[in-house]
Amino acid sequence: MSASPWIQARRTARMNPSLIREILKITDRPGVLSLAGGLPSADTFPIEAIQAACDRVLSTQAREALQYAPSEGFAPLRDWVVAKMAGLGLNISASQVLVTNGSQQGLDLVGKVMCEAGAPVGVETPTYLGALQAFNPYEPIFKSLASDHEGVRPEAFTALEREAPGTRFAYVLPNFQNPTGRVMSAQRRDEVVAAAQAAGVPLVEDNPYGDLWFDAPPAASLASRWPAGTVYLGSFSKVLTPGFRLGYVVAPTELYPKLLQAKQAADLHTPGFNQRVVYEVIKDGFLDRHIPEIRARYKANRDAMAEALRQHLPQGSEWLEPQGGMFFWVRLPEGLDAMALLETAVAAGVAYVPGAAFFAHQADVRSVRLSYVTLTPERIREAVAILGRVLHAALDQAPQPTP
Amino acid sequence: MSASPWIQARRTARMNPSLIREILKITDRPGVLSLAGGLPSADTFPIEAIQAACDRVLSTQAREALQYAPSEGFAPLRDWVVAKMAGLGLNISASQVLVTNGSQQGLDLVGKVMCEAGAPVGVETPTYLGALQAFNPYEPIFKSLASDHEGVRPEAFTALEREAPGTRFAYVLPNFQNPTGRVMSAQRRDEVVAAAQAAGVPLVEDNPYGDLWFDAPPAASLASRWPAGTVYLGSFSKVLTPGFRLGYVVAPTELYPKLLQAKQAADLHTPGFNQRVVYEVIKDGFLDRHIPEIRARYKANRDAMAEALRQHLPQGSEWLEPQGGMFFWVRLPEGLDAMALLETAVAAGVAYVPGAAFFAHQADVRSVRLSYVTLTPERIREAVAILGRVLHAALDQAPQPTP
Repeated sequence: MSASPWIQARRTARMNPSLIREILKITDRPGVLSLAGGLPSADTFPIEAIQAACDRVLSTQAREALQYAPSEGFAPLRDWVVAKMAGLGLNISASQVLVTNGSQQGLDLVGKVMCEAGAPVGVETPTYLGALQAFNPYEPIFKSLASDHEGVRPEAFTALEREAPGTRFAYVLPNFQNPTGRVMSAQRRDEVVAAAQAAGVPLVEDNPYGDLWFDAPPAASLASRWPAGTVYLGSFSKVLTPGFRLGYVVAPTELYPKLLQAKQAADLHTPGFNQRVVYEVIKDGFLDRHIPEIRARYKANRDAMAEALRQHLPQGSEWLEPQGGMFFWVRLPEGLDAMALLETAVAAGVAYVPGAAFFAHQADVRSVRLSYVTLTPERIREAVAILGRVLHAALDQAPQPTP
Repeated sequence: MSASPWIQARRTARMNPSLIREILKITDRPGVLSLAGGLPSADTFPIEAIQAACDRVLSTQAREALQYAPSEGFAPLRDWVVAKMAGLGLNISASQVLVTNGSQQGLDLVGKVMCEAGAPVGVETPTYLGALQAFNPYEPIFKSLASDHEGVRPEAFTALEREAPGTRFAYVLPNFQNPTGRVMSAQRRDEVVAAAQAAGVPLVEDNPYGDLWFDAPPAASLASRWPAGTVYLGSFSKVLTPGFRLGYVVAPTELYPKLLQAKQAADLHTPGFNQRVVYEVIKDGFLDRHIPEIRARYKANRDAMAEALRQHLPQGSEWLEPQGGMFFWVRLPEGLDAMALLETAVAAGVAYVPGAAFFAHQADVRSVRLSYVTLTPERIREAVAILGRVLHAALDQAPQPTP
């Protein structure tokens, strides 16, 4: 037989290589200062604490840690999540906690349980690209939610009710969103929850960055304002290590059984070894000491980038200073196209992610995401200086607007 | 709002709690000798080798092991799989290897890329329940493949061609299948591959137990006989540890990109730490020394169970002695129903899994799966003796066939 015997599912037409991964292939060259990656700084990984925890787990509970384990997750780790959520204003029981392979798997499970071919799902503009990728195989129709510097706006839900009946959920990142770095005020959270309730549109709240605040913690979670109508996703990737792939879903009781069955079908369970090691690291308050160190480091980096942007970026550039998280979101002066300029920038020695990568529809070609957590402050200044020169040169070559 | 805002996807109707998990809840009582579980013996976990490997990884490559990592998997581990597959008669390139969270995730990714609502998928009768669970959310129609003591029969593919055009693939476990323990001869493999090719039905070959042979290795893989038409799934769960959740998919070049995109959307990547630790353990031939120890242990257990079955089971019971793997598949005498007898058996002190759990259609109520890898030979003899007493008593109470 020479003809292929394989028939692929219709949904594969919606599955595509990550644009960001393709961009990172361009930008990942020796000598290039990269502001493109979304990786936490490896300097923040608590290697010694992890090593000690591995030793303890393998000395005291190896047979359990290396055996098959419950799909729900390691019970003490689920209890830890209950306490953590109480600190975020949400009172739950451990029976609502599902441990996942990073919060990315939480997005896949939510998609599997909730998304339907042709049914609408609301997403911020722009939003986390990985969420679009996770939901895409389940063939939803994405509806862009009107957003501003605080994130999604309440009238977005009125629009959904009118234009997209049967919307399965709205996917929102209230804290230092990837890519924009924006954070939602307490008042906006109240307004959004009220609008979502009125429209009957439940929420999927993704919170990988909430602990990375600089001066003040963000307002209480959306889930705490509407527990029955919100699925919450948490992660250890940004506060401990992404290499263990540990996240969790907190779900309303009515949804939990199907999310659990989806998890079981997907991979039986999250590695028990990883769950026990992370629990050993964090059980005695380690994160209360560790996270402030990450905050201080990222804040110094943020400050360095803020200063460099003011110094080097051409007039007409716009940005808000992020109050936490990992990213600046910069709007270039009119006439510039971030994607078109990327190769020139990389040739000059600096890389970024064009913001267009993060839009479900109608990309803003002038937007750029700059990460400040991977490079040192000195390198950040150097990188932004190069970026400034590239942008000034591009403006000089651009056709002048007629007076 | 009191009404629920959640609308679940149609596919959730196909997602159900695992019957085996429900059975294990009944059987998991103190003092009960369990032949029910499918867990490898914790005595086979190489704890010291894993501890040493964790130390090495965290001493020499911690920053990489704890960072985000490629979705394809850790390159040296993928190269190891290439060498392993060459030993199974299949020549591939590392670009065909995708590292997954156990082979269960491989099943989910195959389902996501290949299954379509209403499109047929062929499965053995009986088959691994977890595969049915993995495929179910993608709403295939399961077609039972005619099978015998060697597994699927070649005419099953003629039947598929006639009765189920557009079958996406046939899912087969040629080596010491769960639950039956059966193994496919070299001749049957040739016949099956020829029939599958003639029918244009590609194969998904699952091989978690292939290394656990007792006297002779099984014949070369189906994939080696039809590389372009077979997706192969491998696992470290039965030969090293299930607690690290490490498996791999070997895919034809034409399918690999979509499986990779599905993996990326599902959880970004398999934990880099786990991949590096397992690679550290196995890179210098550790499994060549370790697997023979597992084989010797499981063979002694198999012998103990075989002898006990001959001694204690009532006349009319039937089984084949497994030549590898973890399970005996026993057919009880006519008139007995394994599911109906389970509570009595557990009350008497022995647990098993009724074979009915493993059928997509038309369960054989007389069949029983007995695991011989968890208990010691002494306990196995004790457990089978109890089972024999339960079965004899049930036969005594059963209505006598009229002469």
